[in-house]
Amino acid sequence: MAKLYFRYGAVGSAKTLNLLAVAHNYERQGKKVFVVKPALDTRDGPRRIRSRAGLHRQADLVMGPDAVLDPARFRGMDAVLVDEAQFLSAAAVEQLRELTRTSGVPVICYGLRTDFRGHLFEGAKRLMELADSIEEVKTTCASCNRKAIFNLRLVDGKPSTAGPSIQVGGDESYRPVCYVHWLAGLEEAIRVDAIPPRKPRRKRAP
Amino acid sequence: MAKLYFRYGAVGSAKTLNLLAVAHNYERQGKKVFVVKPALDTRDGPRRIRSRAGLHRQADLVMGPDAVLDPARFRGMDAVLVDEAQFLSAAAVEQLRELTRTSGVPVICYGLRTDFRGHLFEGAKRLMELADSIEEVKTTCASCNRKAIFNLRLVDGKPSTAGPSIQVGGDESYRPVCYVHWLAGLEEAIRVDAIPPRKPRRKRAP
Amino acid sequence: MAKLYFRYGAVGSAKTLNLLAVAHNYERQGKKVFVVKPALDTRDGPRRIRSRAGLHRQADLVMGPDAVLDPARFRGMDAVLVDEAQFLSAAAVEQLRELTRTSGVPVICYGLRTDFRGHLFEGAKRLMELADSIEEVKTTCASCNRKAIFNLRLVDGKPSTAGPSIQVGGDESYRPVCYVHWLAGLEEAIRVDAIPPRKPRRKRAP
Amino acid sequence: MAKLYFRYGAVGSAKTLNLLAVAHNYERQGKKVFVVKPALDTRDGPRRIRSRAGLHRQADLVMGPDAVLDPARFRGMDAVLVDEAQFLSAAAVEQLRELTRTSGVPVICYGLRTDFRGHLFEGAKRLMELADSIEEVKTTCASCNRKAIFNLRLVDGKPSTAGPSIQVGGDESYRPVCYVHWLAGLEEAIRVDAIPPRKPRRKRAP
Repeated sequence: MAKLYFRYGAVGSAKTLNLLAVAHNYERQGKKVFVVKPALDTRDGPRRIRSRAGLHRQADLVMGPDAVLDPARFRGMDAVLVDEAQFLSAAAVEQLRELTRTSGVPVICYGLRTDFRGHLFEGAKRLMELADSIEEVKTTCASCNRKAIFNLRLVDGKPSTAGPSIQVGGDESYRPVCYVHWLAGLEEAIRVDAIPPRKPRRKRAP
Repeated sequence: MAKLYFRYGAVGSAKTLNLLAVAHNYERQGKKVFVVKPALDTRDGPRRIRSRAGLHRQADLVMGPDAVLDPARFRGMDAVLVDEAQFLSAAAVEQLRELTRTSGVPVICYGLRTDFRGHLFEGAKRLMELADSIEEVKTTCASCNRKAIFNLRLVDGKPSTAGPSIQVGGDESYRPVCYVHWLAGLEEAIRVDAIPPRKPRRKRAP
Repeated sequence: MAKLYFRYGAVGSAKTLNLLAVAHNYERQGKKVFVVKPALDTRDGPRRIRSRAGLHRQADLVMGPDAVLDPARFRGMDAVLVDEAQFLSAAAVEQLRELTRTSGVPVICYGLRTDFRGHLFEGAKRLMELADSIEEVKTTCASCNRKAIFNLRLVDGKPSTAGPSIQVGGDESYRPVCYVHWLAGLEEAIRVDAIPPRKPRRKRAP
Repeated sequence: MAKLYFRYGAVGSAKTLNLLAVAHNYERQGKKVFVVKPALDTRDGPRRIRSRAGLHRQADLVMGPDAVLDPARFRGMDAVLVDEAQFLSAAAVEQLRELTRTSGVPVICYGLRTDFRGHLFEGAKRLMELADSIEEVKTTCASCNRKAIFNLRLVDGKPSTAGPSIQVGGDESYRPVCYVHWLAGLEEAIRVDAIPPRKPRRKRAP
């Protein structure tokens, strides 16, 4: 049996760059990797995986919540790498877990731990339950130099807790923060969200 | 701000012994620790914390699901140590998280990750969401030499999935297992649970 | 091939207790462990391994610097556990490394990283070079609440840098410290060591 | 006091890419990093730091074995990042360690653990002694799928142990390997090195 890894980290911790580096290392050794992304992550086009630092590649599979994995596709692979794994369905994680047993291929999942309200995403929750190894990809809080462990949501540059917890965004709307600055942000959000937004804001909100 | 730690591990990974060792180390340095256990864990008497390897001590606080922590009790403490933290309520974990900010005292929680069905316990889930540091206490699978990451429930020595997911037990009823042997155990349990139990079994079941 | 582990930590970090807990866990699962200690560590009698927290057991092998391991003795073992591994010779570590390949048994070594002058012990150096996995057993600085990473030597309760770097001692003569308090201790030691010791001190020094 | 980190990994484990990602993350948050490389590493020009995956930047300081750090240069910095830290002198590592105390800036060093003979490089040894945190950057063995922990030296594509242990090379001359394939490589090298090289090889040797 191979292992299932969950490498979690706050927004902007270079998780995707790490995934691309791992893929690159395997391929330089003449090995094969299979790259998966969840259907929910459509920021950069349906199949594109892109790091903020500038590297990118195409996913071999875009996995919807009800996807059924075909073991034949993973034959001969040395590793399966999953980007934005927090957006996987629980059923998808279970299939990846099973793949490590039936195909003997390690599965390395990169993703956020929690949404901006501080609750585990569905995929992250199932990975926390089923992974052999839980590893952290670290970054610092954007408001101090402590380690970031939460993701603060910003709308028009202001903390906000309005809206759905899954909203695929980039730099403009999430900020990695420590517990102290997450709490402070949530408190500010309560005040901000209580003020009716002006029209321009509505337009720019994603 | 001090840190919140979640040190998780399968049943029988010496989590409590680790807690007792950490308490011992602090006290040998003339420092003060405050030891907490959840009210749900009544195996060894209401306040007793006992390691299978033979060491034990009394908890300073038994924390029920609706407990409200009094910050005054933690004044002058160098660390708060929590045993069987998977049995904490989400609200209790949130208060411990807040304690690291308001009192500046680190909180180190030891506990199981998942129940025998492979789902996060309430306290473990909230710790996976809020902890600054998630660390593993390792042990091997009782059926092979891979790392154990699940807890298989046994009734009369046979795998079983009948009954509630929270049932405070000891050596006799849980076994640390890897993914392969957890799956095998669940499959055996389905067969076992389908057979009506004979009378003596009912008596001995906890 | 099995793995070679080096679990290092400052003095008083419960390394031996961790070793005893791991041995206990293996044996509760009906598995066999083989416990090694270096000949240099004679504090508690030639074969005795004792944790400050109160547990103890006998070593199966006391390994001198020129010992030659007999693979036959490790047949059927599930793990080899080594206490005070910093005192192993480089040649002994190389044999343990080779054992993981030839016998397929994992070797888990517990030991200090550096002597009181801040230099790797011979065994620790070879383990840092050859181990598959380098893991930390943490404890706090005896003079503050930072993590301890050095070992300060005390003679008559005062920091001292006089004497040999290998001197098998216990609580009375070493203290776990962070970088700041190790530096402060070394500076104090230079002053202390410059004063000619009075007679009673000579007698009590080990 | 800030912390000193040693993030070690075999050749080709994307250590430099990790360094560049950390630098990028700090700078996206409006923070300042100071990037150091040892004078010994001249592969890509005196000041250039380049990742095999394609990213690069200029070092702020090229540090020779006798360099004396000027604390004034680190004022206002949020982190110091060191590439190829195995090539630092012991004295250079000691100054970086001291910088964490005097300037309160964390120092994160990336580097190899051992040379192709399996011995710690000078900088790696001092970092193993003085670092607060020792972390691994993982990659797989080029000859199997185990984790790589050694660096095999190749000359003309064949394992070789001839020549100096410090020789700044790239892809063409080092390969990440596990213990089994490092041993096998060393054995092959003994046979290869015993054969007098033919003329074309001399030309192509670095």
